[in-house]
Amino acid sequence: MSVAQAASRVAAATAFAVLVIAAAGVPDARAQATVAPKNRVVMQVSDGEPAKWNLALNNARNLQSDLGSANVEIEIVAYGPGIGMLKRDSTVATRVDEALTSGVKIVACENTMRAQKLAQPDMLPSIAYVGAGVVEIMQRQQQGWSYLRP
Amino acid sequence: MSVAQAASRVAAATAFAVLVIAAAGVPDARAQATVAPKNRVVMQVSDGEPAKWNLALNNARNLQSDLGSANVEIEIVAYGPGIGMLKRDSTVATRVDEALTSGVKIVACENTMRAQKLAQPDMLPSIAYVGAGVVEIMQRQQQGWSYLRP
Amino acid sequence: MSVAQAASRVAAATAFAVLVIAAAGVPDARAQATVAPKNRVVMQVSDGEPAKWNLALNNARNLQSDLGSANVEIEIVAYGPGIGMLKRDSTVATRVDEALTSGVKIVACENTMRAQKLAQPDMLPSIAYVGAGVVEIMQRQQQGWSYLRP
Repeated sequence: MSVAQAASRVAAATAFAVLVIAAAGVPDARAQATVAPKNRVVMQVSDGEPAKWNLALNNARNLQSDLGSANVEIEIVAYGPGIGMLKRDSTVATRVDEALTSGVKIVACENTMRAQKLAQPDMLPSIAYVGAGVVEIMQRQQQGWSYLRP
Repeated sequence: MSVAQAASRVAAATAFAVLVIAAAGVPDARAQATVAPKNRVVMQVSDGEPAKWNLALNNARNLQSDLGSANVEIEIVAYGPGIGMLKRDSTVATRVDEALTSGVKIVACENTMRAQKLAQPDMLPSIAYVGAGVVEIMQRQQQGWSYLRP
Repeated sequence: MSVAQAASRVAAATAFAVLVIAAAGVPDARAQATVAPKNRVVMQVSDGEPAKWNLALNNARNLQSDLGSANVEIEIVAYGPGIGMLKRDSTVATRVDEALTSGVKIVACENTMRAQKLAQPDMLPSIAYVGAGVVEIMQRQQQGWSYLRP
């Protein structure tokens, strides 16, 4: 083998290796972008009207029935005038219980509770709590959740 | 040319080739991140008030006039109490037609139609249909569309 | 050194260089994806009721007090019927001033102002302006900001 032939073979083999590695690396990044996204929806309830609370609960149920309950993660965040949805005397108490049982996560904003002088005994059982509803909604979006304001 | 010279030249040529390919490959990934995003907006219409329907149609028109109709994709999803916007007797029927003509996609939620005993002949012509409005809105966000609730 | 040995050494050195460059490039892309997201929230104010304006200002304050003002960027976009929040005679003028002082960016939609025959002297001082509120809200989401509609 002459020196020129050796150089040529090395260059060819190297170019091939580089292309293989590049091909292995770049599509990997693309695969991450095209993988099926998880179905996750954060819903904001900040209105005081029971009609909006019912709409939120309908939306949650429709997401579950269309996608299958196991295939969608739903979190309802109640704050501001929407906090009434989660009080013990809420007109939608039964439906909130059903949603919790079906796997929907429902959280009350402690900032709002403090402002309205509400404590956990004033609230429906089985719900969860977050320090600030707006921070929760922002963070869910940062984590890739879709936003829905019924 | 000695063997050492040959090796040196091959190594230099190879390092250059690797850098060229790396430069072609890695900035490609970065370019995808910084490339101008497509302008795509999914609008939720879930209120029963015609004022909200008009606001949604105004918003669509403003997006088109500011960005150029060819540069923005808009989809209006009507569901829940918002379904009235797309009924044959809708107070904004003419404006819905104009929006459709201008390239806005307008879809009605079949879950809502079923609940309100509406069939396609009850609805404005030329609109499209989706199984569940909330699923459509979630999926558009998963696809990178911006969300707007007028 | 024989030609074969030279070729072998060049190939080994090259493969190493390629792996180093690949290792430097690909994890870099992954690091970008997992880095802690900046806290940035764009708020839409498009309702005419002062209760909604107060809720938006409460939400901004809660974001700041929970995360620390230095750790969250907030922009309130007023348009449509929401433009009244930013007029000189606004019922929440004092609170708008306080929000501006605390670092919240507050912008009025010039499309809306034109439609309502409003000029900058009609508006609160220190606010900023955007051509189209809806375009601003879309672009902020494209830039990774979370969306909140109080």
